[in-house]
Amino acid sequence: MPIFALDPRLAADTLPVAELGLCSLRLMNDAGYPWLILVPRRAGLADLIDLEPADRATLAAEVDAVSCALKAHTGCHKLNVAALGNVVRQLHVHVIARFETDPAWPAPVWGKAPAKPYAPRAGEAFAAALSAAILGN
Amino acid sequence: MPIFALDPRLAADTLPVAELGLCSLRLMNDAGYPWLILVPRRAGLADLIDLEPADRATLAAEVDAVSCALKAHTGCHKLNVAALGNVVRQLHVHVIARFETDPAWPAPVWGKAPAKPYAPRAGEAFAAALSAAILGN
Repeated sequence: MPIFALDPRLAADTLPVAELGLCSLRLMNDAGYPWLILVPRRAGLADLIDLEPADRATLAAEVDAVSCALKAHTGCHKLNVAALGNVVRQLHVHVIARFETDPAWPAPVWGKAPAKPYAPRAGEAFAAALSAAILGN
Repeated sequence: MPIFALDPRLAADTLPVAELGLCSLRLMNDAGYPWLILVPRRAGLADLIDLEPADRATLAAEVDAVSCALKAHTGCHKLNVAALGNVVRQLHVHVIARFETDPAWPAPVWGKAPAKPYAPRAGEAFAAALSAAILGN
């Protein structure tokens, strides 16, 4: 059975937030948007339909829990939820808090503005706050 | 209780494919990509987390059924599944068949190339073929 390993590009572009039941939750290192990524810890998957049915249900529940916490924590106007994977093929789901004042609004965030990394420690602090909001600790 | 009505912009940009248990399934009138949109027939929703839990599960199942049929019918390389809604706020989910040869690859499809409407009758014929593939009739 193949062993899951986080895609190196996803690892390089994100900070760890929490390990959920199915997914590794990561914060995109882009201060332009509160932008989370859920990566199911299953090897060799690319599309949502590649998941086993029980995992698919768990993923939806984790996406929703993360979405609710992200909306409550940021007060965003809109959530964007997407499984694209054209560049990084490993199955991952974006959950992005959007504001009418953000750099790409109302367009999708991808390819609009270069990622603006968080200031030192700011990303880790935001990830810790989101982890507490999501895990309720 | 508010009554569901398809957003006028979604109606103008798409062709009808099928009425599923929860969603109206529509074909984006853009021959550049096999591009379906699922719209839950519930009034006043914007985000996935606005759905009642039973509807949320139904939506995931309908997205997956549509995804499987679209992949089988088109032989696409990748599926893109997204709930964005920054421009049209009514809750809707994109399911797009992506090819490494399509006009936007590997970028997301939004905002890349102007929509290229289907030739007369070609959109309706494609919608009918997809409806048969999805409904199994």
